[in-house]
Amino acid sequence: MKEIENIYDKENFFNEYQTMRQDKINANDLIEIPIMKTMLPNLEGKTILDLGCGAGGMSRYFVENGAKKVVAIDISKNMIEEAKKYDCSNIDYRVLALENLDEIEEEFDLVFSSLAFHYVEDFSLLMQNISRLLKKNGILLYSQENPIATAVKLEMGEKKYIEKDGKRYYLLNNYNDISSRILFLKHGGTIYHRNFETIINTIINNAMKLIEIKEPLAPANAVELDFKYSYYKDRPLFLFVKAIKE
Amino acid sequence: MKEIENIYDKENFFNEYQTMRQDKINANDLIEIPIMKTMLPNLEGKTILDLGCGAGGMSRYFVENGAKKVVAIDISKNMIEEAKKYDCSNIDYRVLALENLDEIEEEFDLVFSSLAFHYVEDFSLLMQNISRLLKKNGILLYSQENPIATAVKLEMGEKKYIEKDGKRYYLLNNYNDISSRILFLKHGGTIYHRNFETIINTIINNAMKLIEIKEPLAPANAVELDFKYSYYKDRPLFLFVKAIKE
Repeated sequence: MKEIENIYDKENFFNEYQTMRQDKINANDLIEIPIMKTMLPNLEGKTILDLGCGAGGMSRYFVENGAKKVVAIDISKNMIEEAKKYDCSNIDYRVLALENLDEIEEEFDLVFSSLAFHYVEDFSLLMQNISRLLKKNGILLYSQENPIATAVKLEMGEKKYIEKDGKRYYLLNNYNDISSRILFLKHGGTIYHRNFETIINTIINNAMKLIEIKEPLAPANAVELDFKYSYYKDRPLFLFVKAIKE
Repeated sequence: MKEIENIYDKENFFNEYQTMRQDKINANDLIEIPIMKTMLPNLEGKTILDLGCGAGGMSRYFVENGAKKVVAIDISKNMIEEAKKYDCSNIDYRVLALENLDEIEEEFDLVFSSLAFHYVEDFSLLMQNISRLLKKNGILLYSQENPIATAVKLEMGEKKYIEKDGKRYYLLNNYNDISSRILFLKHGGTIYHRNFETIINTIINNAMKLIEIKEPLAPANAVELDFKYSYYKDRPLFLFVKAIKE
């Protein structure tokens, strides 16, 4: 089994992250999750794989809305322990990295993942595994940061944008440099930038047909709750991808 | 038949454009056309529709490489007259706007278009027409300006980017504003910006399955010939889309 960097189990990071997510106002709950829910297929009687399930919020949602069984994996022991504090009926939680999906042997009607794939370096292997784990006509639905948002490759102290006359100008000079990006958070973290070409072609080349993509702006209620989201009205923060196994 | 703005037949624009394209060094010949050629399906015995054929360069290429018949349309009489100065064997040139494809009744193995679709306002109607004009398993291959490049909505005198420490920061604040953009050329011109979501979903929703997209940078030889192309090493200037009729 491959050893994978796991910042979520570094004590300081986990605390910092928990604080951020428990905030009443965060981009996931305000922007990302509501859109994911509108893109879900019918869940009734379905078997679902939740990749990077975190504290299990969506896994529970699937069961509450008719799913027969959910296999929910996360690299973080802390997250899985957190998830297990809630009702676990029909949810099989496993501590497992997205790099090690070859350990899973079931087949699924839906593979779902919320904001986890940009932590995975080998997107090609990930899509190969997902394609194998999906039944014919099974659905892949996932979200990630938008390529326009992850493109910037900063050096320490550099800024992502320049403001002039109330407008933001963004650094895009590494848009086609498909490699890691360091998040200068207090406790570190790495994500992987991929452009649209890499994302779309990798999915297509693994026997999945694209059905829909979305790259929405922050909705008005998010901006109303917190002005910082007004800049997500500038350019999309997230990318949502839905595909079907052929 | 719908009346469509046609800047190519304004005398000054046509002269200006001819001068630009006759330049030994231009982005079309150096960057765009070579990539389009690598993405073409086998042409042998095929019937091809060339949308926005201009002076017919690619239409002649198709016939020279085995195509049985090419229908080549352009909104500009000047361009079609220019095209007819060359060998027209197996090429049927017609003066027609991309907005009026309902006038075409044949079916094709390949619908091809080089850098013309961003002039068309109604992308949905365009894709609906193309889907109808393609045989089952027929190919759509087209290029357009990349959404990252067309996003910016400038007011007169504004710049697309700010330069700082040798890096360019781009204005993206209208990325999700799917509407017209004014090109501040001497003789006018309008293009239509669409984000990836709009482009991809419109194709998918018209019974075409995506096969491949490309958003390459300028190759080294282009930059060597003209330094201005070094900034196309920053971010992709073009988007190439290949899809198959289901």
